[in-house]
Amino acid sequence: MPVIDLDGVRALGRELSNWGRWGEDDERGTLNLITPEVVTAAAATVRRGVSFALSVPADENGPHDMKTSGRFNPIHTMTRYRGDSPRGDAWDFASSEDMLIIGTHSSTHFDALAHLWYDDLLYNGRHHDTAVTAWGAVHGSIQNLVNGVVSRGVLVDVPRHLGTTHLAPGTQVGPADLDAVLGAAGVTPRPGDVLLLRTGTYPRQRRGLDVAPGASPGLTWECARWIRDHGIAAVCADNLAVEALRANGDGPMIPFHMLAIRDMGLLLGEMFDFEDLAEDCAADGVYECMFVASPLNIPGGVGSPVNPIAVK
Amino acid sequence: MPVIDLDGVRALGRELSNWGRWGEDDERGTLNLITPEVVTAAAATVRRGVSFALSVPADENGPHDMKTSGRFNPIHTMTRYRGDSPRGDAWDFASSEDMLIIGTHSSTHFDALAHLWYDDLLYNGRHHDTAVTAWGAVHGSIQNLVNGVVSRGVLVDVPRHLGTTHLAPGTQVGPADLDAVLGAAGVTPRPGDVLLLRTGTYPRQRRGLDVAPGASPGLTWECARWIRDHGIAAVCADNLAVEALRANGDGPMIPFHMLAIRDMGLLLGEMFDFEDLAEDCAADGVYECMFVASPLNIPGGVGSPVNPIAVK
Amino acid sequence: MPVIDLDGVRALGRELSNWGRWGEDDERGTLNLITPEVVTAAAATVRRGVSFALSVPADENGPHDMKTSGRFNPIHTMTRYRGDSPRGDAWDFASSEDMLIIGTHSSTHFDALAHLWYDDLLYNGRHHDTAVTAWGAVHGSIQNLVNGVVSRGVLVDVPRHLGTTHLAPGTQVGPADLDAVLGAAGVTPRPGDVLLLRTGTYPRQRRGLDVAPGASPGLTWECARWIRDHGIAAVCADNLAVEALRANGDGPMIPFHMLAIRDMGLLLGEMFDFEDLAEDCAADGVYECMFVASPLNIPGGVGSPVNPIAVK
Amino acid sequence: MPVIDLDGVRALGRELSNWGRWGEDDERGTLNLITPEVVTAAAATVRRGVSFALSVPADENGPHDMKTSGRFNPIHTMTRYRGDSPRGDAWDFASSEDMLIIGTHSSTHFDALAHLWYDDLLYNGRHHDTAVTAWGAVHGSIQNLVNGVVSRGVLVDVPRHLGTTHLAPGTQVGPADLDAVLGAAGVTPRPGDVLLLRTGTYPRQRRGLDVAPGASPGLTWECARWIRDHGIAAVCADNLAVEALRANGDGPMIPFHMLAIRDMGLLLGEMFDFEDLAEDCAADGVYECMFVASPLNIPGGVGSPVNPIAVK
Repeated sequence: MPVIDLDGVRALGRELSNWGRWGEDDERGTLNLITPEVVTAAAATVRRGVSFALSVPADENGPHDMKTSGRFNPIHTMTRYRGDSPRGDAWDFASSEDMLIIGTHSSTHFDALAHLWYDDLLYNGRHHDTAVTAWGAVHGSIQNLVNGVVSRGVLVDVPRHLGTTHLAPGTQVGPADLDAVLGAAGVTPRPGDVLLLRTGTYPRQRRGLDVAPGASPGLTWECARWIRDHGIAAVCADNLAVEALRANGDGPMIPFHMLAIRDMGLLLGEMFDFEDLAEDCAADGVYECMFVASPLNIPGGVGSPVNPIAVK
Repeated sequence: MPVIDLDGVRALGRELSNWGRWGEDDERGTLNLITPEVVTAAAATVRRGVSFALSVPADENGPHDMKTSGRFNPIHTMTRYRGDSPRGDAWDFASSEDMLIIGTHSSTHFDALAHLWYDDLLYNGRHHDTAVTAWGAVHGSIQNLVNGVVSRGVLVDVPRHLGTTHLAPGTQVGPADLDAVLGAAGVTPRPGDVLLLRTGTYPRQRRGLDVAPGASPGLTWECARWIRDHGIAAVCADNLAVEALRANGDGPMIPFHMLAIRDMGLLLGEMFDFEDLAEDCAADGVYECMFVASPLNIPGGVGSPVNPIAVK
Repeated sequence: MPVIDLDGVRALGRELSNWGRWGEDDERGTLNLITPEVVTAAAATVRRGVSFALSVPADENGPHDMKTSGRFNPIHTMTRYRGDSPRGDAWDFASSEDMLIIGTHSSTHFDALAHLWYDDLLYNGRHHDTAVTAWGAVHGSIQNLVNGVVSRGVLVDVPRHLGTTHLAPGTQVGPADLDAVLGAAGVTPRPGDVLLLRTGTYPRQRRGLDVAPGASPGLTWECARWIRDHGIAAVCADNLAVEALRANGDGPMIPFHMLAIRDMGLLLGEMFDFEDLAEDCAADGVYECMFVASPLNIPGGVGSPVNPIAVK
Repeated sequence: MPVIDLDGVRALGRELSNWGRWGEDDERGTLNLITPEVVTAAAATVRRGVSFALSVPADENGPHDMKTSGRFNPIHTMTRYRGDSPRGDAWDFASSEDMLIIGTHSSTHFDALAHLWYDDLLYNGRHHDTAVTAWGAVHGSIQNLVNGVVSRGVLVDVPRHLGTTHLAPGTQVGPADLDAVLGAAGVTPRPGDVLLLRTGTYPRQRRGLDVAPGASPGLTWECARWIRDHGIAAVCADNLAVEALRANGDGPMIPFHMLAIRDMGLLLGEMFDFEDLAEDCAADGVYECMFVASPLNIPGGVGSPVNPIAVK
């Protein structure tokens, strides 16, 4: 893809902007595209009654390290187990307890619109000083998704389309690729769709299958316009950051994020796992599903771990 | 309800037992009742395309206190906000981060089957020494729900049926009450249904509406048989523990839990919020919905925070 | 005490300021008063070879609540116990593990100089934008105390001097009180001394002894000058915030903190427990000790839990 | 060193046992050797009034990884910084906050006597079922050290004695080495001494200086008898586990730990940093100091992070 500089991002951002489109107080962005009709149509895609988890385990086997990424992998600890009873009493039953210490962006997750911005302004023109405080996001928090994301999910299985197991490091997926893969799958994108972008990388790395080091493959910034034009409500990918990393030369590091989250108000999901779903889609030739995901109900949260499911 | 003693629980447990029913290695219990046909029928209940969150916020306003319950309320903290950029570099964008420290049973949650047992044995006869270790549940973990719970949800709005806003402390909901409320709602229970028991208590306490102290109202242990007979797959309630607390005299404290989780392998959800859903059901007279909930993907977890949704 | 307004704090702060006194790059403030001679003299106060813990337990029985104070009490959980061995292997030994989740100011602790400021500037003129970032304190962190605080500790047992067990809510301790109590104890303050202010309140509240609700008693802002004049290196108190709370009318809430930490660079310790030490001092009539406290070695930390000890 | 098998450990453990030596209820073990006279003599070693931190930073740069060691490195996060004020109000001052999530054995720390045992029994014959529960250590907790460890510290700088910067992987330090190094340093061990064992390894690895991979050098199990004979109260080392790792062939992995903690009730400190102290000792030829360390006041804790100091 061509390199885009910061001014280019700004100009394209203005062009693709959804600010004000759903009211000056809107905090939901492209979720507004998921109308009741879209929800009903999504439910109608359920034909066989089978569901697939789209998350990786929220465990210590993540890519994070406080030393390098400033994030840590989820920590799960048991605090009571075996036959231990609750404190200080005799009980007829025994029970177990555990806890989770988790950065909201450290495993399969959604980015709240308050997660990323530039030029001091968040989606819909909120200033970061008043929108994202020490006490949580005042605007654009993850609670805007609290009723769940229920829409048609459309699997874009790029490596399978190319006849390979996974995309090589650095592979860039552009608008033409989206058209080609969807076309071959017999899917016509509709407003409100959730794009499920399979690169085959992160979930396979977790399984120890793909070891080639390198930059995560993903979308180019040019896909922002394609997504805007097709009325896509969310993009969820099985890589670290949806977009292709180390792909924009000396320009901004993640231009797609800047355009998508801040200008378009687009919901992004990252570190998904489409391996089982993709096998099923390849087997039955049906690349659409009912996608359902609901983030935890975290007041002021700027992201949430989530275990989305696809139902076919 | 009559008091049941430990031997009574044991005897009734043997009678209602689902051990071996779905194979000696089964770890999913009554989730097996949610067949593909049940899933498809659940999707078919979606008519208007509206969804409702069924969780309370995962925040500090919970009922827990390490001093009294040995649990703590969820802790959510921002770790980066306003215009701060990631560490040590110049960036074109700004972003925010946060984290969550959460006991898996401290907010709206599901109990894994490994969460509770008696006489040293868990559901399907697993011994606690090998099933629930310091490293997590080896059997009956929350990962058995990882593909999500998608089924027909049936709202049992007891207080509205009784013409009140919420049940008084100590109110016991028995099998005849379930029949009466469902009958009035025009709902015939079906195998695989998820029972959504509204008492009107905990969510209203959080809102500061109901202040009468006292024992949480809920199901009697006698409902276990009703649930077994009707093939209910899960019971989710808007109180602390599904069942009526302090209701069994000198007998076991939570006999319904003992029967449900350990003997029947029944999925229980607690601390739900049905306030919005209940308003809607009362308005349109439709008490069924597509219930979708997927716990976090926690290896060995004995519970999970969850934000279930109802779609109508 | 007379009420002081913000301009009054500013003026007095300039007068008492230690900015530049130990160099323009100094981050240690009054710790500079603890010279090698002071350390040696402190060690020479050890006569009987007995030591006293000056901390309260770092446990759930603290005063904090996220709902009201935005802080939580320390959370300690076992993660392995009884005869469980490390994961996945046979071992000849068994071991236990635990973890601590702790706000650095939520139990007995020191405030780093980066913990509090006003007018955008911290001690020694550092601007908060560059001194206290999302990645920790760049200047004035707790690591400036990493070699420990070893000095003469001087117990100021105000309630015992007044013939009572503890100070009533709202009691203000002023410069004349300090002179009177120390004089009666036969102690002449020396440069580098650590003042150990006993009010008898918080540790007794933890023990369930004092239940009178009300504002924490403590120092008046006028003590700042006394402390400056006597070359005191640190003030540690057994209340929540060293100074008297709700004592300054419509003026700044904690003027002593503003003067002490920001202008004077004074080390403050809070939530200490002097009950055992005070008994001993009353018994042998010796109110000085070797005070030793070393915070955890936390890069960028703005405070640290600590268990200081007094050796006599 | 010769390999010792489990029966050998048991036999030697009985021989070196301190069970019952300080009463059948004793939980302090060799800390009993630190008599008031020892404390006073320790204070008398302070001549120059200089102190040294003996800890490594409690940060993300530790050796732990949940995947391999089941422990995680300390996590320190800011939760308020820059000019943010406390929630929801106008304030005259600004302040910062942070928190620490830390395994008690994951940085410089002491092992409580409840941390390790074999044959189901802890120090002084406590059974693990009643001594180390889900609610913390009932016997042998870290609170037994709450008044601090104040004694003479004696630096055993093995690499410097050998004319090198650090010990090679696998190096075993036996009783004769202890005699040789101390003899050359002009130090005669005394009852109650704290042995400060410098290998030069872990702190240098943290600094990126020593990269040779391999088993941590340290004490042999034979040192247990030497330590018992000399009345040593504690051993603190700058490696991961005091003793030489992977040094006992097919025998127990850490026989010194088994003998020291469980049979002798010996206090062990690990992951210390003696680099600065060692430079100073080499410069002035004085290898003794006043050692002061006080663990956090954690009820039931089986270890504690600590920042010990040496004062000379």
